[in-house]
Amino acid sequence: MLENIRIVLVNTTHPGNIGGVARAMKNMGLTDLCLVKPKTFPHADAVARAAGAGDLLDSALLVEDLDQALADCHLVVGTSARSRTIPWPLVNPRELASIVTPLPQETKIAIVFGREDRGLTNDELQRCHHHVHIPVNEDFSSLNLAAAVQVISYELRMAQLLSVDSDKPQWGTDWDVELAENRELELLFGHLEQTLTEIEFLDPEKPRNLMPRLRRLLLRAVPDKIEVNVLRGMLSAVQKYGRR
Amino acid sequence: MLENIRIVLVNTTHPGNIGGVARAMKNMGLTDLCLVKPKTFPHADAVARAAGAGDLLDSALLVEDLDQALADCHLVVGTSARSRTIPWPLVNPRELASIVTPLPQETKIAIVFGREDRGLTNDELQRCHHHVHIPVNEDFSSLNLAAAVQVISYELRMAQLLSVDSDKPQWGTDWDVELAENRELELLFGHLEQTLTEIEFLDPEKPRNLMPRLRRLLLRAVPDKIEVNVLRGMLSAVQKYGRR
Repeated sequence: MLENIRIVLVNTTHPGNIGGVARAMKNMGLTDLCLVKPKTFPHADAVARAAGAGDLLDSALLVEDLDQALADCHLVVGTSARSRTIPWPLVNPRELASIVTPLPQETKIAIVFGREDRGLTNDELQRCHHHVHIPVNEDFSSLNLAAAVQVISYELRMAQLLSVDSDKPQWGTDWDVELAENRELELLFGHLEQTLTEIEFLDPEKPRNLMPRLRRLLLRAVPDKIEVNVLRGMLSAVQKYGRR
Repeated sequence: MLENIRIVLVNTTHPGNIGGVARAMKNMGLTDLCLVKPKTFPHADAVARAAGAGDLLDSALLVEDLDQALADCHLVVGTSARSRTIPWPLVNPRELASIVTPLPQETKIAIVFGREDRGLTNDELQRCHHHVHIPVNEDFSSLNLAAAVQVISYELRMAQLLSVDSDKPQWGTDWDVELAENRELELLFGHLEQTLTEIEFLDPEKPRNLMPRLRRLLLRAVPDKIEVNVLRGMLSAVQKYGRR
């Protein structure tokens, strides 16, 4: 899906921003950059800000008008700071991702970003199927062009990742130890209670809420088998310590 | 919630990046910036890249070490490119937002970003309850510091906007005890290490991964103040037990 998304920049003024956009795109796995009449391009500032994403600048499609940029695209989405003259289907980046992800794989999608100072014109916005708006702080809404591309590309990438592996593990990719089984946990709690009684921290006559508190704490962490073994080892060491 | 999130930058080299971070934060409604020993700050490059978010630079907290940055925080999250020596609870920015959003409103959260070239050290990462990883393109993973802050701040903002009318607490309706602050957790871990050495369960010559494993386990549970007191009391009881 990501390779069918074209980022279209209209009349960008600062070449550094084009480089920043290339970097943001490549970080998120996008490759198709199209420049509609940039003011200054190519330029050393673009290469500098691209920082390793220079290949996207080299392969960027340079065109004279928006028609050429959009000709072979099936779905066109314009970025908009606010809704204009007449209301248009307006989505946030997450909603955009949820619209785009289920489309047939060969669907070509253009996401169009306007000028640094004025965004897109009403005519340009009315070429779009949807408008996407990043919900920025209204008191400080001037999002840098590369930052806007970063956020939208991130949402598209997340949507793709989540649609591929929907069975994600609890804490991330690399938990290498099996979680403790309930019977192991109960043995641990029994051992804990016995040890705390031995060291006279727990008074069986007046247990208060000590064991429930400790159970709740450890259960919240959902311990794995090695962790349970470490805790059991600690308890044995405590018992041995007093019996010397 | 957003005003209780502290962005902590550790040993940032380029002042321009600090400015870019301030802009990204302010765009997303974050205000609390903390700089741990930046290489060059204040600096004109920071002001230039901040582009209207100079107030965040002015109010930034400048500290000498990570301890000072985290002392009053309840939840610490470190950004990590990949998992290190031992696996740690690893989340993506969306999962982070879903963990953070339901916490009690007064919970202070630190999100820690490392050096441009080397990220965070293992010691620094092991101070964290969670690690957050932005799922970048593995062939081009060098995310600019401001871009990383942009993505994470965006997720936090989205979660807050989406949660306005669905405020479900994390662990049940009535968590009545304040979460432990980072300094209390560090005192607990110091006490734990000392006690385990006394009972000869921990060999300071051969510490292996014992303390990181125990840190990871307890941090996962995000202990509250009473739980920390109970654990400290247990440790004191163990020490007293052997000294009889």
